[in-house]
Amino acid sequence: MKHFERLFNPRSIAVVGVSEDAVRPGSQTVRTLLRNGYAGRIYPVNPKYPQFEGMKCYPSVEAIGGEVDVVVIGVPAGGVVAVIEQCAAKRVPFAVVLSGGFRESGPEGITRQARMLAVAREAGMRIVGPNCLGLANIHDGVYAAFGSITRPPQLRNGAVSLVTQSGGFGYSIALACAAAGIGFRNVIATGNEADIDTVEFLDALLEDDETKIIVAYIEGLANGRALLEVGRRALAVGKPLLVWKGGVTEQGAHAAASHTANLTGSYDFYQAAFRQAGIVEIREIHEAVDYIKAFESRRFPAGRKVAVMGGSGGSAIVFADAGEHAGLTLAGFTDETKRKLARVVPDIGAVHNPVDFTAGYIAGGNAENFGTAVRAVLDDENVDAVCLNFATTAGAACHAGAEVLARIAPDGGKPIVVFLSTPPSESGDALPVFEAAGIPVFPSPVRAAKALAVLADYAQAQARQAGQFTSAFSADEDIGQGLRPALLRNAVGALSEADSKGILEGMGIAVTRDVLVRCIDDVPFDTMTPPFAVKIASADIAHKTEIGGVKLNVRTRDELAAAIDEVLVNARSLAPQARVDGVIVSEMLSGGFELIAGVVNDAVFGPVVVVGAGGVHAEILADTACRLAPFDEATARDMIDELRCRPILDGVRGSAALDVGAIVRTLVTLSQFAWHNRHRIAELDINPLFALPGGAVAADALIVMRSRSDAV
Amino acid sequence: MKHFERLFNPRSIAVVGVSEDAVRPGSQTVRTLLRNGYAGRIYPVNPKYPQFEGMKCYPSVEAIGGEVDVVVIGVPAGGVVAVIEQCAAKRVPFAVVLSGGFRESGPEGITRQARMLAVAREAGMRIVGPNCLGLANIHDGVYAAFGSITRPPQLRNGAVSLVTQSGGFGYSIALACAAAGIGFRNVIATGNEADIDTVEFLDALLEDDETKIIVAYIEGLANGRALLEVGRRALAVGKPLLVWKGGVTEQGAHAAASHTANLTGSYDFYQAAFRQAGIVEIREIHEAVDYIKAFESRRFPAGRKVAVMGGSGGSAIVFADAGEHAGLTLAGFTDETKRKLARVVPDIGAVHNPVDFTAGYIAGGNAENFGTAVRAVLDDENVDAVCLNFATTAGAACHAGAEVLARIAPDGGKPIVVFLSTPPSESGDALPVFEAAGIPVFPSPVRAAKALAVLADYAQAQARQAGQFTSAFSADEDIGQGLRPALLRNAVGALSEADSKGILEGMGIAVTRDVLVRCIDDVPFDTMTPPFAVKIASADIAHKTEIGGVKLNVRTRDELAAAIDEVLVNARSLAPQARVDGVIVSEMLSGGFELIAGVVNDAVFGPVVVVGAGGVHAEILADTACRLAPFDEATARDMIDELRCRPILDGVRGSAALDVGAIVRTLVTLSQFAWHNRHRIAELDINPLFALPGGAVAADALIVMRSRSDAV
Repeated sequence: MKHFERLFNPRSIAVVGVSEDAVRPGSQTVRTLLRNGYAGRIYPVNPKYPQFEGMKCYPSVEAIGGEVDVVVIGVPAGGVVAVIEQCAAKRVPFAVVLSGGFRESGPEGITRQARMLAVAREAGMRIVGPNCLGLANIHDGVYAAFGSITRPPQLRNGAVSLVTQSGGFGYSIALACAAAGIGFRNVIATGNEADIDTVEFLDALLEDDETKIIVAYIEGLANGRALLEVGRRALAVGKPLLVWKGGVTEQGAHAAASHTANLTGSYDFYQAAFRQAGIVEIREIHEAVDYIKAFESRRFPAGRKVAVMGGSGGSAIVFADAGEHAGLTLAGFTDETKRKLARVVPDIGAVHNPVDFTAGYIAGGNAENFGTAVRAVLDDENVDAVCLNFATTAGAACHAGAEVLARIAPDGGKPIVVFLSTPPSESGDALPVFEAAGIPVFPSPVRAAKALAVLADYAQAQARQAGQFTSAFSADEDIGQGLRPALLRNAVGALSEADSKGILEGMGIAVTRDVLVRCIDDVPFDTMTPPFAVKIASADIAHKTEIGGVKLNVRTRDELAAAIDEVLVNARSLAPQARVDGVIVSEMLSGGFELIAGVVNDAVFGPVVVVGAGGVHAEILADTACRLAPFDEATARDMIDELRCRPILDGVRGSAALDVGAIVRTLVTLSQFAWHNRHRIAELDINPLFALPGGAVAADALIVMRSRSDAV
Repeated sequence: MKHFERLFNPRSIAVVGVSEDAVRPGSQTVRTLLRNGYAGRIYPVNPKYPQFEGMKCYPSVEAIGGEVDVVVIGVPAGGVVAVIEQCAAKRVPFAVVLSGGFRESGPEGITRQARMLAVAREAGMRIVGPNCLGLANIHDGVYAAFGSITRPPQLRNGAVSLVTQSGGFGYSIALACAAAGIGFRNVIATGNEADIDTVEFLDALLEDDETKIIVAYIEGLANGRALLEVGRRALAVGKPLLVWKGGVTEQGAHAAASHTANLTGSYDFYQAAFRQAGIVEIREIHEAVDYIKAFESRRFPAGRKVAVMGGSGGSAIVFADAGEHAGLTLAGFTDETKRKLARVVPDIGAVHNPVDFTAGYIAGGNAENFGTAVRAVLDDENVDAVCLNFATTAGAACHAGAEVLARIAPDGGKPIVVFLSTPPSESGDALPVFEAAGIPVFPSPVRAAKALAVLADYAQAQARQAGQFTSAFSADEDIGQGLRPALLRNAVGALSEADSKGILEGMGIAVTRDVLVRCIDDVPFDTMTPPFAVKIASADIAHKTEIGGVKLNVRTRDELAAAIDEVLVNARSLAPQARVDGVIVSEMLSGGFELIAGVVNDAVFGPVVVVGAGGVHAEILADTACRLAPFDEATARDMIDELRCRPILDGVRGSAALDVGAIVRTLVTLSQFAWHNRHRIAELDINPLFALPGGAVAADALIVMRSRSDAV
């Protein structure tokens, strides 16, 4: 928290806008500070009152004699800038502006926000909000906040911090966690983010020793790449970062646009960042609860092979279904495990996975057998994690079962999770036993399975990052000469196909054999292999097909002559303004599968590489995968594995397997090129990129430069 | 409940197997009957005791003087058949066999179950179980049950009945519902279903006036078609039927197979039955809770256009996202609505959808404005339902808001749902107000959106069924002559392509123009249009491609002669046993899109029609849709709309739209043929079925007859 230390642990807080009206934000702040035993000094500010809540009330910030670390401002919008000016004069390091009436409220508010920010920047003061519920440090009773954050139920101390761009919705996540017994460290509602934004808060929380898990609700970010980077740092320090992205659909994004003026960015790119940084995406409130419970157990599976045990066959089936959906497989037990189980499981049960130890097995009188059975499964080298279906087990039996697991849990690092449907009132006080032992309990086998899958995802992401993100990609000097093509230096607008392909070739990406001609006599027909593609060559014609500028499957010399004439005539009549360089004659490829690959230089995320199924699939199936550039081969392989058309690349109907390695290398090269030239390139499209049995070949390409106005 | 009246409302219950050991099933049953004030007579049976729980204990069923409606049997498996024989002798109409040790436990148990069933059938006695938790009629304190069903918490009276093939898991659903305040009518754990199965219970519940909503957990059914039929009856009488299907994945089905011996059936076919009958599929425990709460409100939307209102922008965004995923659209308001809202919503709020009435708007002092705003939105003709995001609204404000909605709710039939994250303890006793008004409250905007979507789905299914399921398909005599082809009468095994296509043509499905030849001279070359497909004609060769029996894109007469020779030679060398009828020369189609269509005659569901993307898509994308035959055009259209390749049929890249009507008619015809010939046909494949701009044409076809051994 280094530079935010005084914000989260202020020695003194001034609250501007206290009032006899208890619902005024400032009044709520002061009362909450008092109620929670905040240990620092509180300075209420309102010229109308000599005293507030038994404390001296100051007429202005200036009038406060002592040093002030944080000023909380709850006055109407029109008065905020004047208060900020006083804070600046007093060298206050942090202001939390609760007041609304800024960017979110139209032109006047936008101007007001800009003025406020200018004053703060000039003075080196940092601002939280405006238009926010504020922030709280639960451990130390620090509440620079109002509204739901200050109302009961009081959050208990814990290791979770929340950063939310929506006070009302974000705090709903906190309330659900609180109801499940989860404790908190910091809660931050960021409001308009005029100054300090979500990512900067996330970064600060990584430095806070008391924060072990972070949850964020995000509607939009001005800098998506910063999220990738803070996510990677979070993964590196082992603090799980859970993110809910709001506004992921068209109608959700539309609602977000009318709610805030944040740039939202493409959801695909957010998901790419999540995957590349090991960020855990949540899409339901109970997912936050479940995954935090799982992470708080601090036990991670080494793989995705799980065992499920219980007396309820149906619960095991449901767990198996949900596990398969979440990418978990039921482990096959060793013979030794089955022998061990056979000694303690009734004959009418089952000693394979799912283990059916029959109804009534979990009971005080059977604790030893139950413990032996669970240990046998946990000790199996094929098992990475275990789910115990307690289901409707109740009362003393439930308690006894919990005690058995609590004794076993510390023995091994493998996660144990429990499905229990008995209400707390009937579960024989088993819940505190489970909690003390760090064994998360879930109210459905589906949720138990998903939580285990998230633990496995996280463990995999952590294992992978070890050598990966620190690799060559950060150092621009490692990038080869081909990634700095001379052609780009003075290029403007769209490059021609020939120039685009030339640049690809320069960086080592294979392209089709092409010749640029003006008539049939220019074509070295005898040295080329039909069929040919004939395409108009003009940097001014980006969509060649639409003006009849493409002829495919041209075979004979006569057909070729006619095709060359036709595309020239079409271009002249349908794109009369275009400067035409001639006609490209390309050897057509066959026997492969058409992909598309490309780069989008996004305003929020910067350069992103996309790969997808090409041809008719591209338009219909939207079968694409993307990652933020630059990235390594393992990441490129993940992208390809995400495609629904992935099995085609292994060969179908007896056809040869296609060269996935070549596609991987192409994507990695594109990602390096995209990163290195991010200030120059607007987009790059390879359509199609032919995946062949021995290589990947760009059959058409288009590079578009950024205009100067949107250059970074 | 007509024929099950005495099972669910017995005048007397005998319990065989009571014991001083309180955990014995029979002891649990009697104690539970006493505790719940069962009004009929209880006859404990055990020769060891003269008395049990202060009642006379009988040495045997025979020794009971009075009439017995239900005998509950909890003795060890070995003694069950003897008890059943006594029941038979005494003409007891129903036995509930709690004991395990039957079909689920191996060969001996299978024999035991068969003997028990034979005795019962002979006497006209019906059996529940064996190996089950039994059943309960909550309203009347009838518990022919043990285990979790008999333990606290006591279910409260209500309108929901539960039928479950897994006692432990199914009762977990009941417990979650109970925790949400939902009351129950009947709970039935069916066990091995030796006699009465799930579908028969569902049917009985449709006749029970007190049951308004039914939930079922199903692992497998012997007769899937009966589920379709009971589902349609449930839809017709307006009792929502919610079904969780366990064992829907490969590993889930594998777990189910080791748990029970039920036939499981393909999940695709279950889902088809769900869609055709308006059955609501559930895949999480809280979905059962949420959808029941929504259905209990008895308000249904006329369409899928929803409004969302609140002071929490983030909650509205999340609702919009979830709504889009669930097929809901945010309604556009009329200008009148916006004018009405503008009068009561603060200027800094928003009067379009989502309505942002700003934080703190829901409050006692603002009740009139709040009510006016909600009424304005409900009165908008474009709005089918409204979600109110109370979010973190708490205390008196929350209560006041609930009162406002409770006053409005009776006015219109449009559903009102609420998202509230405040815990019950802090919500100002608002929950009873909402409950009394029939306004369901959900703990996340996602769950609110999904519940509204389910209500809309159900209303749509009800609207559609009105004229549909009662149509011609039930009457075989309406079926045309083409659907009873003479060729089928004595057919055995696989039919040849020519015969299969002949049958298709006979029922009005277009096929490619083919000639069956023995050599090139048989081909009327001048009257046919190349390119041609050349295919070996043999009923013994089902997979022609694999033996080199297919040549495509044959153009000239010479190529054709060579192709005919080649496939004949290949067939002779690679399928020497096959009887070869000759060679089929077909005009190849182009300009369309390849589909596959066919019929599977499933052991559990009977004839099912499948349609899907053909060619390489068929193998890779698994893009298929299916419905149980027979069905109407609207259903066929649904199938096509489900395909991911659906947009291709509308024409892509400027190509003509394809004839969806022809595909629809083809599927309906196939469904009628499949139903009419269900006792004879094993499968029918049209691969490919060419979708063309003017028609749908079968380019290849294969009909396989059922063997006599599996004929129905």
